[in-house]
Amino acid sequence: MPPSPAPTDPRFDIVGIGNAIVDVVAQSDVRFLEHHDLHMGSMVLVDEPQANDLYAQMGPAIEVSGGSCANTVAGASALGSRVAFIGKVADDELGVIFRHDLTSLGVHFDTPAAADGPSTARCLIFVTPDAQRTMATYLGACTELGPEDIDTDLIAAGRFVYLEGYLWDPPQAKAALRAAIDIAHDAGRKVAMTLSDPFCVARHRDEFRALVDGPIDILFANQIEAESLVGVTDVWDAVNALQGTCEVVVITRGDQGSIVVTADQVHEVAPVHVPDVIDSTGAGDLYAAGFLHGLASGWDLVRCAKAGSAAAAEVIGHFGARPARDLNEVVRTATRQEGTA
Amino acid sequence: MPPSPAPTDPRFDIVGIGNAIVDVVAQSDVRFLEHHDLHMGSMVLVDEPQANDLYAQMGPAIEVSGGSCANTVAGASALGSRVAFIGKVADDELGVIFRHDLTSLGVHFDTPAAADGPSTARCLIFVTPDAQRTMATYLGACTELGPEDIDTDLIAAGRFVYLEGYLWDPPQAKAALRAAIDIAHDAGRKVAMTLSDPFCVARHRDEFRALVDGPIDILFANQIEAESLVGVTDVWDAVNALQGTCEVVVITRGDQGSIVVTADQVHEVAPVHVPDVIDSTGAGDLYAAGFLHGLASGWDLVRCAKAGSAAAAEVIGHFGARPARDLNEVVRTATRQEGTA
Repeated sequence: MPPSPAPTDPRFDIVGIGNAIVDVVAQSDVRFLEHHDLHMGSMVLVDEPQANDLYAQMGPAIEVSGGSCANTVAGASALGSRVAFIGKVADDELGVIFRHDLTSLGVHFDTPAAADGPSTARCLIFVTPDAQRTMATYLGACTELGPEDIDTDLIAAGRFVYLEGYLWDPPQAKAALRAAIDIAHDAGRKVAMTLSDPFCVARHRDEFRALVDGPIDILFANQIEAESLVGVTDVWDAVNALQGTCEVVVITRGDQGSIVVTADQVHEVAPVHVPDVIDSTGAGDLYAAGFLHGLASGWDLVRCAKAGSAAAAEVIGHFGARPARDLNEVVRTATRQEGTA
Repeated sequence: MPPSPAPTDPRFDIVGIGNAIVDVVAQSDVRFLEHHDLHMGSMVLVDEPQANDLYAQMGPAIEVSGGSCANTVAGASALGSRVAFIGKVADDELGVIFRHDLTSLGVHFDTPAAADGPSTARCLIFVTPDAQRTMATYLGACTELGPEDIDTDLIAAGRFVYLEGYLWDPPQAKAALRAAIDIAHDAGRKVAMTLSDPFCVARHRDEFRALVDGPIDILFANQIEAESLVGVTDVWDAVNALQGTCEVVVITRGDQGSIVVTADQVHEVAPVHVPDVIDSTGAGDLYAAGFLHGLASGWDLVRCAKAGSAAAAEVIGHFGARPARDLNEVVRTATRQEGTA
């Protein structure tokens, strides 16, 4: 077999593959969550009748494009990275909204909409007074994403391919992701992945473990996800268990900052202080945006982690999971190296 | 002809008739508005290709139910008034969103969706850094509202019927409104109306003038609209010209408060201070909500004006035209009569 060709200069810094979801965000109270058996702070998958039933009982809402990986690529694009996205919407109004919101930020997104089948995915997000978000996702058209949507040239043109763990839920997407990983590695690119959610880890633990031990180069997980993946209850036990698996393992810890783990180093990085947390939706997504933007910019890992924390801090200071302020300025200030963000 | 029957106890405090619109809100800059020939602070009607073209060039947006009269009835319902709405959406996703957001606030809304024809109306709102909103509205399904949608029993069941001036734009709606006015008066009810927008006044000045001289009992206008209606350039000239036309004329003046004019009295009422104006969308709509809620509660006119100012102040302190905080509490504090708002 001939050796892999040397990677050519990539056209994109990040190519994200994720669920294409419109968020439906409303304020809620804890009793509503209890009544509907929703676990605070987590995401549950629902079918269309369940989604319709929950929506009927939900308060007035705003609609805003979401999706974990899509939030990340939106943030990275706002930071100046060259970004593309692969994901599946339906040929309906929410699909048009999702595509508009991503492309208007400069994200390259040309995965064709599904002409028939289920409607564009939506995530009902209940924000409680403590700023936590509890989510019920109807995957809709995301279940139509398949290997035929993986554009080989596009994947090969990205310095980093970034995958969301949630993509292990729609059954067809898995094959698409495995194809994408192979294409990326054949082109000499790196593959990054987020574990997405503790319940997502629980649903796919064995497969995630195999991915982390195998093809994934850069892993993002919050503390609970990391602990759950390796079956421990202490973050340092998780650090020990994960050290030496992926090239870089990043564990986010909310207001305790983050830990960056490589084969021979462990960095604890302080968080960026947020005076008033309004809505924690998107914190992990924007952390990954800042971190990957830093990697693509050639920054050292500690500075990448600071950029991640700054981007996360910005997004939890307001309602919604996409950046509102000039993210570049926020990250530049936090990483304290003027003019290089 | 037999005399009008004495009005029975109304089932609703307010029955609003308005355009059923979903707002598409994005941050913008002044150069974008100039480039697209949009007049800052006003609303322009666009056709579907123009709307699509503007949307394609608009930044990432959030979708939130809007419509001037719908915002007013949403606010009044949040204040505890019993409220119904008549308006036309299409049988599409934005129509479902509009209906959900209104009914989830307790507003009675059963106007059937248009099964075919144009899609649900949308208003592209460009918010500039000075918190002004500039709007381009595609009326879509609103043009399908006709006399057949005017539910006689519903109109007769409302203490106040509230009409938005914007409804003079879709050609069929005019006949519906004239029918509603007659039904309301035959049932011994009052008819309130807002002039909506200076450009709307310019489009329909003669008809609006005839309505004000004729069947309208309560008129809401901002200073510019009032001056434009009667062809003067000083607010006190407008007060003089309008005094004695409608039973109550309310002129709002932004950070200068409002003026309430009856046949024999003129009240200047101070504004409620807003430390940080974020987005002026919905200020007039929520003023009307507070004022009408006060009237329905039997408050004196000055207290109604204070309630209007308080509700307006709440909505301009955040993004979007529907109330976010507990509006009842806001109005109760501002009108300083604990426990009665």
